[in-house]
Amino acid sequence: MIPERLAALRHEMEKRGIAIYVVPTADFHESEYVGEHFKARKYITGFTGSAGTAVITLKEAGLWTDGRYFVQAARQLEGTTVALYRMGEEGVPTVDEYIEQTLKEGETIGFDGRVVNGRWGEKLKGIAEKKNGKLYVEEDLIDLIWEDRPPMSKEPVWILDEKYSGRSTADKLAAVREEMEKKGADVHLLSSLYDIAWLLNVRGNDISYVPVVLSFLSLTKDSCIWFLQEEVLDHKIKAYLSENGIITRPYSEFYNYVKTLENKTILLNKAVVNTRICNSIPKSAAIMDAEDPTEVMKAVKNPVEVKNIRDAHVKDAVAMCKFMYWLKKNVGKIPMTEISISDYLAGLRAEQEGFLDLSFDTICGYADHGAIVHYAATPESDVPVKPCSFLLVDSGGHYLEGTTDITRTFALGPVTEEMKADYTRVCRSNLNLANARFLYGCTGMNLDAIARLPFWEAGLDYKHGTGHGVGYVLNVHEGPNSFRYKGTAERPGGMVLEEGMVTTDEPGIYLEGKYGIRLENELVCRKGEKNEYGQFMYFENLTYVPFDLDAINPDLMTETERGYLNAFHAKVYQVVSPYLAGDERAWLKQATREV
Amino acid sequence: MIPERLAALRHEMEKRGIAIYVVPTADFHESEYVGEHFKARKYITGFTGSAGTAVITLKEAGLWTDGRYFVQAARQLEGTTVALYRMGEEGVPTVDEYIEQTLKEGETIGFDGRVVNGRWGEKLKGIAEKKNGKLYVEEDLIDLIWEDRPPMSKEPVWILDEKYSGRSTADKLAAVREEMEKKGADVHLLSSLYDIAWLLNVRGNDISYVPVVLSFLSLTKDSCIWFLQEEVLDHKIKAYLSENGIITRPYSEFYNYVKTLENKTILLNKAVVNTRICNSIPKSAAIMDAEDPTEVMKAVKNPVEVKNIRDAHVKDAVAMCKFMYWLKKNVGKIPMTEISISDYLAGLRAEQEGFLDLSFDTICGYADHGAIVHYAATPESDVPVKPCSFLLVDSGGHYLEGTTDITRTFALGPVTEEMKADYTRVCRSNLNLANARFLYGCTGMNLDAIARLPFWEAGLDYKHGTGHGVGYVLNVHEGPNSFRYKGTAERPGGMVLEEGMVTTDEPGIYLEGKYGIRLENELVCRKGEKNEYGQFMYFENLTYVPFDLDAINPDLMTETERGYLNAFHAKVYQVVSPYLAGDERAWLKQATREV
Repeated sequence: MIPERLAALRHEMEKRGIAIYVVPTADFHESEYVGEHFKARKYITGFTGSAGTAVITLKEAGLWTDGRYFVQAARQLEGTTVALYRMGEEGVPTVDEYIEQTLKEGETIGFDGRVVNGRWGEKLKGIAEKKNGKLYVEEDLIDLIWEDRPPMSKEPVWILDEKYSGRSTADKLAAVREEMEKKGADVHLLSSLYDIAWLLNVRGNDISYVPVVLSFLSLTKDSCIWFLQEEVLDHKIKAYLSENGIITRPYSEFYNYVKTLENKTILLNKAVVNTRICNSIPKSAAIMDAEDPTEVMKAVKNPVEVKNIRDAHVKDAVAMCKFMYWLKKNVGKIPMTEISISDYLAGLRAEQEGFLDLSFDTICGYADHGAIVHYAATPESDVPVKPCSFLLVDSGGHYLEGTTDITRTFALGPVTEEMKADYTRVCRSNLNLANARFLYGCTGMNLDAIARLPFWEAGLDYKHGTGHGVGYVLNVHEGPNSFRYKGTAERPGGMVLEEGMVTTDEPGIYLEGKYGIRLENELVCRKGEKNEYGQFMYFENLTYVPFDLDAINPDLMTETERGYLNAFHAKVYQVVSPYLAGDERAWLKQATREV
Repeated sequence: MIPERLAALRHEMEKRGIAIYVVPTADFHESEYVGEHFKARKYITGFTGSAGTAVITLKEAGLWTDGRYFVQAARQLEGTTVALYRMGEEGVPTVDEYIEQTLKEGETIGFDGRVVNGRWGEKLKGIAEKKNGKLYVEEDLIDLIWEDRPPMSKEPVWILDEKYSGRSTADKLAAVREEMEKKGADVHLLSSLYDIAWLLNVRGNDISYVPVVLSFLSLTKDSCIWFLQEEVLDHKIKAYLSENGIITRPYSEFYNYVKTLENKTILLNKAVVNTRICNSIPKSAAIMDAEDPTEVMKAVKNPVEVKNIRDAHVKDAVAMCKFMYWLKKNVGKIPMTEISISDYLAGLRAEQEGFLDLSFDTICGYADHGAIVHYAATPESDVPVKPCSFLLVDSGGHYLEGTTDITRTFALGPVTEEMKADYTRVCRSNLNLANARFLYGCTGMNLDAIARLPFWEAGLDYKHGTGHGVGYVLNVHEGPNSFRYKGTAERPGGMVLEEGMVTTDEPGIYLEGKYGIRLENELVCRKGEKNEYGQFMYFENLTYVPFDLDAINPDLMTETERGYLNAFHAKVYQVVSPYLAGDERAWLKQATREV
């Protein structure tokens, strides 16, 4: 099937004189998760993982993906003629390097200009021009050959009430316009679905796990134009938009609109806005390539949001505690598999008032599956869960009051001293970061080492960031705040931690073929004492679910660390116990006992 | 006296139509310490501190300096008509802000273009141009009025033998030329006296505490021209230069030489190279404004240097241990003052073989003077030292084998529990950083929090970096490596810690009016285990002098921290005891006992 699709694509490439065609995993908005309509890379390679890029030449086809998908991709690419390029392995070229090495003098690189961001598009253009070649980006060749392509999602739009968002749309629009004025921008083009949803206080359902609306936005001093599939609006939303001075136009009209912006100074972020948008900007206009002002605004949760988020976490904790009780009590007694366990947990979350959806695909990894950082059980990989080893569960939900992300690892039977030592190390790491006090001005880059020290001192590490920001009924992975020791191109020194930023704290240990342990809480940054030394900051823990004391050896903790653990567990009991009764409540008391 | 000098300066300003004249504390090379000839700012204001900038208008005169000099400057500026601007205090404009606020339409800013670096010069030019004014930078007005100005230093040049430098001049020149070729530079202009001394393996004595040679250097693929006061060369040096293909030209000829570089691509660092040099570059040339390649090369000490540095630290430790023994034994029994103590310590260093000079002005601060971070005792401030409170001594030496920088704080009599708690906190901070293990790729920005956590957890901090790089028989304050939690403009993410980099570890606590405590060791970065997680790195401690156990409360340390302290003290005894005998040796045994 894949070879036929590749042949059809190559036929279209030849007709247009395209030597290399690039198919990334992307929608038109640089969204992390993409809807079915946008799964072109899956269509052309057969690989179903969430991340990967296909590059097709007239003779070869390759699929680039990262370590979490090497096994799955190798299996799924069998018989497809698509070669697997293992990203990050020694000697494996990057996508750009492969293209540069493969492209011959005068040849053309093709891709759908809507699924490649402006920055990458410029880079590919540079590669083509070095070879005196060019780009072909105005057509989606996959669309020409994909006969039963699912249509774009068109789910209804709903309003996130101000009692949840904590800030009116009018106020947010005014704040962005103020930033535009400071920067001297006439027009701001926004294509991030998260930022548009935040700015307009609207939500939808066009992407799995992220309740956003496929749309673009253009903001000027006097106008706000929302480009979307207008049939998703009902009378209530139309009235709301009208009140806020927001007019709508068809989604597909956005590119033509951009072409009319003659002589304007246009603020946009080329790392997010797609190549076709960038190419549509008139030559007379000036592009101001900078971060969207909404990026930091939405990361700093306002007091209403923080209060709501606490409530969401209480609901989530009730579901998680009931789950933990059920799991520890029943494992080995009733049949369980990774998938059945995930489903059971999803059911408990769904019982909570205000629950909307899961915030991402649950990672439920038993024993050695726990060591695969981004494992997602499939019917083929699913295994029975037995009363021994560790079970790692990374899950979360969207509630009207906010989004949660929590990982717990459970001892399902007797654990060795070595396993306890590993679990205790992860626990110490989590607690030490959560209890850090620091001066205002610090970034996650300054603090990451606090979590890693218990690992580094033993010659260990985890190959992922310690934490990421969390959206409010938006993407569970949100920037720009994070805990990581390396900076990004945009922020080489990291993002200063502001009061109201919510960041996960999720160290882990992964022993291939054995087990994985990760313990993830969410932390909201708060202001502490202000004195002669400056403004001190601290974290308030938002996650109220016990760490599994069956897997902790308190003798491996310092007195301070035991104090952190006991204080955390006392808080968990205080917050969650009013929502539990009988055996569950008695169990929680025991599960949060002092050590 | 100062008012007369200001009047004379204003007379010269008026003749030239200059509205504002800027006199920084600088030589022509952005050196940290400047020779007597270059103390123009002291001449025109009367303020003798090591840092400050004077700005003189036709009516006003101001002196900008930082917190460590507020008291001294206020006293010294009395009766001079020069106003003190306390840098960093709320509402106090910066020098640039003052100039921008004061300069009127069409007016001229003047300064000696040789004592303002290219970057600041451009900024001042921008300020002038905004007011349709201009710069006047080709003359040193202070020189016109300073009748008995000391001449420029012209001390003999000497060669740092390869057994000390560890790398031949030919090899270093080849390495810099390779970098120039990579960057596409035809010419590299070097004005940092430290970098020139490192590159040519020469030393001199033209700056207090830094054995360098006043000079400029121009390097091309085929030539190396050293611009210096040629009378400082003897036959031996001339032969050495000739062997290495280095030709010399007069110091003052450099600017004319630069004017001849038509059509060249010139690598230079505008943050170091002065304005007159930048202004002398022909319009046809292209400036490549980047860090000098020597900057990182000299920071990464080679294995021979590291071995030598260890030897230098042993010598320094012998002097410091003898000093500590003498001080603790004799305080209250023989007369001592801050200055007499500094002199005694200098004498002990001078007894060591290979000793060249102190590496900076000793900070010897008794009791409340210890709380003044950069205190330097003067005959007026000097106080008798009694058998009570703390004495803080920050000192160091240059030896042929390297440069040292060490701070110890001594309990001179009974100390309260509170004082012990403070001392113990500083000690924990020092030891925790020194014992950090971390992955290659980390910068001092990632690790700084390890030292600050014991402070931050108590709502305390110290208002200086945790550590700086140390030169090899060069400036005791060397970049680009450091421990600090905020990045610099050049390196927002900090400098990656490379094997061979030497950095100080010097946390402190400063209680105004009471006492100061600082404990400073030097650490050399080493490679540790390489495994599946990456290349681990660690620090080897180079400083072998005890912390004062009389001021440490081991009950306030974790078991791990006590282990660090005991291991450190065991090493001190092992290294230093062979050089001590009798009572001194017995004392060291006791001073390094296990706790």
